[in-house]
Amino acid sequence: MSVTRRSFLAAGLGAGLLTRWEVPVTAADSQVTLDPTGLTKANIPTPALLVDLDMFESNVKVMAEHCRKSGRGFRPHAKTHKCPEIAKRQMAAGALGICAATVPEAEALVAAGITGVLLTSPIVEPAKIARMIALVKRETTTMLSVGDPLEVELLSQAAAAAGVDVEVLVDVDIGDRRTGIPPGQPALELAQLIAKHKRLHIRGVQSYAGHASHVVGWEAREKSSREAMGKSVATRELLNKSGFDADILSGGSTGTYNIDSTIDGVTELQVGSYIFMDIDYRRIGGKASGENYADFQHSLTVLATVVNATHADRVSVDAGTKAIDTTTNWKPEAKGWPGLTYNRGGDEFGLLTLEPGANLPKIRDRIEFIVPHCDPNVNLYDRIFATRGDKVEAIWPIAARRS
Amino acid sequence: MSVTRRSFLAAGLGAGLLTRWEVPVTAADSQVTLDPTGLTKANIPTPALLVDLDMFESNVKVMAEHCRKSGRGFRPHAKTHKCPEIAKRQMAAGALGICAATVPEAEALVAAGITGVLLTSPIVEPAKIARMIALVKRETTTMLSVGDPLEVELLSQAAAAAGVDVEVLVDVDIGDRRTGIPPGQPALELAQLIAKHKRLHIRGVQSYAGHASHVVGWEAREKSSREAMGKSVATRELLNKSGFDADILSGGSTGTYNIDSTIDGVTELQVGSYIFMDIDYRRIGGKASGENYADFQHSLTVLATVVNATHADRVSVDAGTKAIDTTTNWKPEAKGWPGLTYNRGGDEFGLLTLEPGANLPKIRDRIEFIVPHCDPNVNLYDRIFATRGDKVEAIWPIAARRS
Repeated sequence: MSVTRRSFLAAGLGAGLLTRWEVPVTAADSQVTLDPTGLTKANIPTPALLVDLDMFESNVKVMAEHCRKSGRGFRPHAKTHKCPEIAKRQMAAGALGICAATVPEAEALVAAGITGVLLTSPIVEPAKIARMIALVKRETTTMLSVGDPLEVELLSQAAAAAGVDVEVLVDVDIGDRRTGIPPGQPALELAQLIAKHKRLHIRGVQSYAGHASHVVGWEAREKSSREAMGKSVATRELLNKSGFDADILSGGSTGTYNIDSTIDGVTELQVGSYIFMDIDYRRIGGKASGENYADFQHSLTVLATVVNATHADRVSVDAGTKAIDTTTNWKPEAKGWPGLTYNRGGDEFGLLTLEPGANLPKIRDRIEFIVPHCDPNVNLYDRIFATRGDKVEAIWPIAARRS
Repeated sequence: MSVTRRSFLAAGLGAGLLTRWEVPVTAADSQVTLDPTGLTKANIPTPALLVDLDMFESNVKVMAEHCRKSGRGFRPHAKTHKCPEIAKRQMAAGALGICAATVPEAEALVAAGITGVLLTSPIVEPAKIARMIALVKRETTTMLSVGDPLEVELLSQAAAAAGVDVEVLVDVDIGDRRTGIPPGQPALELAQLIAKHKRLHIRGVQSYAGHASHVVGWEAREKSSREAMGKSVATRELLNKSGFDADILSGGSTGTYNIDSTIDGVTELQVGSYIFMDIDYRRIGGKASGENYADFQHSLTVLATVVNATHADRVSVDAGTKAIDTTTNWKPEAKGWPGLTYNRGGDEFGLLTLEPGANLPKIRDRIEFIVPHCDPNVNLYDRIFATRGDKVEAIWPIAARRS
């Protein structure tokens, strides 16, 4: 039965959901809502984002088990998946909560019932702060990170106005020089400023060393992460010595999970990419796996269809810049087609070429690509097809607008 | 009044809109629906995609006027904007219809009441073809491009089964070697194949020369486009000589608009980027404007906020890979901050640096960036803030899923 836009709009307006200007063109008339029944890799509309459930579930389990054995918690980062359904599975595996990089991500997670949501990015706008206060009010385990006196002032004002107590972590900059307060004395001074505001409560510190996450070679990576996290550990100790209850030290990455979990003072890991993996991570090498980082399986792929095979030396697939992020310059890798190379072909298409003598795919062939970098790739989609073998078991919404 | 997910879900299910699995986490609870009243560049949540209405309207008018004076039609490409509100304005300016690169784009356009929608990409899957047939049935001016015998067969079968007549353009490959049939005899043979299927009706040809669109230097670009479009013109003539009514020759780009409109045989332009412009187009130079391509104004920007200003040599903004596409490797350009350089800072942030001695922005400062490449940048957002001066006049949905 087809639904007219007018009836949907009326229902939405009646429910107070839509404002006058937000015409649901995408939702009502133009979307083909899909029932996963009968959907397989052979008929999913392409380009499509896929997650292999067997591999995904293994990754979730391996990380949870590692953290349990190491006596550490984990608060996985949703910036990688932006998907409440995935967050729920991470919580079910024993996560302390879920990290978010943006306010809409935090909103989507709290809306889905996730507790222990931690916003890891700085926010400096009253409107965004008000949205976070509303989340804390709704779910009191929601926390924010603060790395600057201005953030403290704005957050305190908003919390006081709303009559809401807010738990915070001090965001300690351990080398990225991108967000956060420098370690040691500056962090202590920020904590002391926070302590003056009675609606704000310090629970500990957080630190992310983006510069360490992809260091090639496990020994070099270990050295980098130990040095970086060491600053965070020292800062936490300084806070505790100075009378704070800095119970939490949250941080780390998929690339350093089995390094940070051995550092005394790190209480929880903020791992993100491990659920999916990508080319950018594979090349950094593992502790026991040599040149390829193989601790977690490549569960994430982009499925594309060959839409043109006119030429002898190349075929075109329906996955270009808008479907596969190639900002890192690594090439997407076709599964099951050794020697098939993906080349950029604009925003809508990709061009596949082959070693001379081998066979190109044919028109209508479907190919899965391991992606160069998972986070921005997931960001290109609004749903992910969760597959078991060749069958689509579920279709999960990738939540959250840009801001 | 807050709306529970359950009531929204019930309304949606009752309206037959949502399937059991498609939980509207994004729509119901986690979204802040914004009323444009009172919204200005000072308080739009960032990162945000903005279009300056004065510049945008000028661009729309300049192109329409140029085509009118040249005696050519124009069927602008929605792959650039994916926005029914923009498509409507292009139609109001005299467009013959709107081009779409994907089935969801075509669906969104037809849902918004756009006539003359032309799908320019090849589709080879029965499900996608069925969706297009449904669109043609709903709006008979909707057309498809065909560039391969398989597409013809599949389309014909579906059209026959649905009892729907479908108008098509032959997609002629004039050098990109990405989609379409080679010009001349191969195109004629494809047309003759199409003619055997009584539900399919040839209206003409279409051609896109991506390789010509960004040739630097107007004279070199003119040479490139004339040579490429010449093949399409010759193909159209061949079809007409052979008994077809190939009335339409649709093609061209923003970079070649004032070249293709002087080529006899080209009946309509498929210009896309002209409404927005970007760094990638600016550098190609214009006919009368020297090194900078200045025929159209840079109406599109990304608005970001400085969220960290701890260091003396850099500040961080809340716009990274997920907010500004840098695949072309051109740097986003800050408006009003000469000498301010945008550097990549990961997926969530950008790092701004400055010539020594100049002043960096402060925390909470807001900066608008001209984007490196407009099409994939628009693709990162689901709404665009249409501004008049500093005020937000409207918020337009950017429609259409990936597939």
